[in-house]
Amino acid sequence: MKFPVLILNFKAYAEAAGRRAVEIAKAAERVAKELGVNIAVAPNHLELALVAQSVEIPVYAQGVDVESPGAHTAHVALGNLKEAGAAGVILNHSEAPLRLNELARYVGRARELGLDVVVCAPDPTTSLAAAALGPHAVAVEPPELIGTGRAVSKYKPETVVKTVQLVGKHFPDVAVITGAGIESGEDVEAALRLGTRGVLLASAAVKAKDHYQKIMELAKPLLK
Amino acid sequence: MKFPVLILNFKAYAEAAGRRAVEIAKAAERVAKELGVNIAVAPNHLELALVAQSVEIPVYAQGVDVESPGAHTAHVALGNLKEAGAAGVILNHSEAPLRLNELARYVGRARELGLDVVVCAPDPTTSLAAAALGPHAVAVEPPELIGTGRAVSKYKPETVVKTVQLVGKHFPDVAVITGAGIESGEDVEAALRLGTRGVLLASAAVKAKDHYQKIMELAKPLLK
Amino acid sequence: MKFPVLILNFKAYAEAAGRRAVEIAKAAERVAKELGVNIAVAPNHLELALVAQSVEIPVYAQGVDVESPGAHTAHVALGNLKEAGAAGVILNHSEAPLRLNELARYVGRARELGLDVVVCAPDPTTSLAAAALGPHAVAVEPPELIGTGRAVSKYKPETVVKTVQLVGKHFPDVAVITGAGIESGEDVEAALRLGTRGVLLASAAVKAKDHYQKIMELAKPLLK
Amino acid sequence: MKFPVLILNFKAYAEAAGRRAVEIAKAAERVAKELGVNIAVAPNHLELALVAQSVEIPVYAQGVDVESPGAHTAHVALGNLKEAGAAGVILNHSEAPLRLNELARYVGRARELGLDVVVCAPDPTTSLAAAALGPHAVAVEPPELIGTGRAVSKYKPETVVKTVQLVGKHFPDVAVITGAGIESGEDVEAALRLGTRGVLLASAAVKAKDHYQKIMELAKPLLK
Repeated sequence: MKFPVLILNFKAYAEAAGRRAVEIAKAAERVAKELGVNIAVAPNHLELALVAQSVEIPVYAQGVDVESPGAHTAHVALGNLKEAGAAGVILNHSEAPLRLNELARYVGRARELGLDVVVCAPDPTTSLAAAALGPHAVAVEPPELIGTGRAVSKYKPETVVKTVQLVGKHFPDVAVITGAGIESGEDVEAALRLGTRGVLLASAAVKAKDHYQKIMELAKPLLK
Repeated sequence: MKFPVLILNFKAYAEAAGRRAVEIAKAAERVAKELGVNIAVAPNHLELALVAQSVEIPVYAQGVDVESPGAHTAHVALGNLKEAGAAGVILNHSEAPLRLNELARYVGRARELGLDVVVCAPDPTTSLAAAALGPHAVAVEPPELIGTGRAVSKYKPETVVKTVQLVGKHFPDVAVITGAGIESGEDVEAALRLGTRGVLLASAAVKAKDHYQKIMELAKPLLK
Repeated sequence: MKFPVLILNFKAYAEAAGRRAVEIAKAAERVAKELGVNIAVAPNHLELALVAQSVEIPVYAQGVDVESPGAHTAHVALGNLKEAGAAGVILNHSEAPLRLNELARYVGRARELGLDVVVCAPDPTTSLAAAALGPHAVAVEPPELIGTGRAVSKYKPETVVKTVQLVGKHFPDVAVITGAGIESGEDVEAALRLGTRGVLLASAAVKAKDHYQKIMELAKPLLK
Repeated sequence: MKFPVLILNFKAYAEAAGRRAVEIAKAAERVAKELGVNIAVAPNHLELALVAQSVEIPVYAQGVDVESPGAHTAHVALGNLKEAGAAGVILNHSEAPLRLNELARYVGRARELGLDVVVCAPDPTTSLAAAALGPHAVAVEPPELIGTGRAVSKYKPETVVKTVQLVGKHFPDVAVITGAGIESGEDVEAALRLGTRGVLLASAAVKAKDHYQKIMELAKPLLK
């Protein structure tokens, strides 16, 4: 997994459904190529394979439901992600929280499969536990700020700093990124200044009038 | 929704992951066109949009996780299915059982959206409850036969017959289809003879060496 | 199961925790004996056996987690309810919604065990589906009114009436009771006038300053 | 929390339902007093308050469903445990796995409430993550051995030793205990020799013909 990184989560937003998922992913790809920075997109499950065959930047799954392929109607299997075109997976997003024991298995298996692995957590202590499982990155995201437009890097900088310290002390191989309420390039810059190695965001990019322009603003701080 | 119908569920089988989902769907499309019969395919979430833009036969979602689009990371929203290209949805498969109250809401909303709605249930009594919710079809599938190769139409014909009677008595507008263990054209024929209006199946088609040939065999009884 | 009935749900209220569960149950027992009416209490799981050995009126479980006794840490098994002293069970409360297929199995098994079975549902259509499963009673409770003090019998009488009609038409052996927002004897009376055969309520009794007095008020309309 | 400790989990075994829960707890109490060792019992939710008022040894809840008391029908609230008589809580048993984020909140809240907190985990890495959350003890239990009679201390000693090392290195304040397949005093002794500070077990005690005698055998190694 390459850092610093900007990860764009499309969630289940109507604004990123169907063909619009491909359009937003292509805008992200254009910015990534123009700036030479790392941007990954995480479309909804429904459009994952479609987006993956449409762009060259990394495509991440927003999560998984089971570990192994098989007779699992309506479930997304970790073991099928690469076949569908995914290069990574986000696990334990606060909107799709996982049981600790499953999470531990998924992290181990995803790394074996060669996927980038990002585990979300709501606070420093939980981030430390997540880091103990050995993902590439932990994304600390206070749930109360998600979707609010009040950036974690401005409104809860101490949460970010403490996570960077705790994880850095015990599990220095695990990168810390952050998210929640990130709306502007300035918010991204603040997050990086706090010691993180990237940002995970959703609505600011997905709901932007001009996706290319907004993603460009958000990605520029990665250059510094 | 058109009957009689053959619905092919790809589950999360590795044999139907990535590009293979498109290949199986195209084989089904070829059979549907050649025979002039109704075949729907239900790819895994990961390939839904990709399959939907690749074939003209109805594409069904294997299930959904939430009703409305929005900030639902790693969840599939009913409200995004049409945008992704789906024409219908399978709900309450025994591998993805739904809470009664959610199921009731999903059935109502899916019909408003113009989607075909199939609700699975394990036995006659539960099928009756499912039919009370007003889907287009109820698929009675004894879970103990799913994936066994022992066809419900041969090994539990009384389950099918009782479901057809119960649902027909109380909710005659709801079609009864069936599934579980269906492996051959003969099994499909037996299911139709018991009074059902279609068959839901998975492994027999997905794991066939020659998808076209197997689906042709399975679909032919629909002509009679 | 005897009708008309008043069922008092203690939920996980702090006001009904520990010894207070026994006190409220004893107040209900006193009213039941004085008036000669049917009152059942549904204490939290933690106090079920304790309450059951303290009173003679029927004690209902608020729900169950699994069907059979066994190696199910932190789960309540339907098969252990009678041993713990329960005479009935409430299933599918909107705060503990059950999967349709489980609910169907639990209803059947609970009746075999000789337990009173009440299934909750949020609206007429879902109540009809619940009734199809064959419980003693269906309790229609619009979730948006639960805990509000705005009684279903006053604010949504048409929901109650439609449920009584639908269930009565298809499954006349299933009694319809109701709940949500019931605060006073007047609310109970209104519910019975709409054709129901009982009321399920929680906070009005549990949070009352004087449990005996409040339960007396709520139970009196059962006499008429 | 006092160590070394023997924790007896009654699960949802029929053998420990109703009055039998009190009998087994009393046998454990007798052994604890006679030997002067630490034994805690974890009855099913249904009998928790009843057992707690019947014995003086610590009574643990087998788990919880929500954090705060309130309108949570059929859920056990952490905040009501003390009122019901519990002195501690077992979290994340493999039969009742918890989401990482919930688990983190529950551990923190349970400690604030003055409860003993034991978090189960299936392997060394997951145990490390569990220890990061700050419970009194982590119980490493390979799920494939639970209920088999093949003791973890004999069949997977390396799992126990690695957990003791990993947790001891990063979080030395957290005790490591173990469980799974423990059947005899010899198994308990082996577990303690591997560096653990206690044992969590279920069927060996619950299903014993003579509870007192079996618990005596299992507890004696704690004396050394």
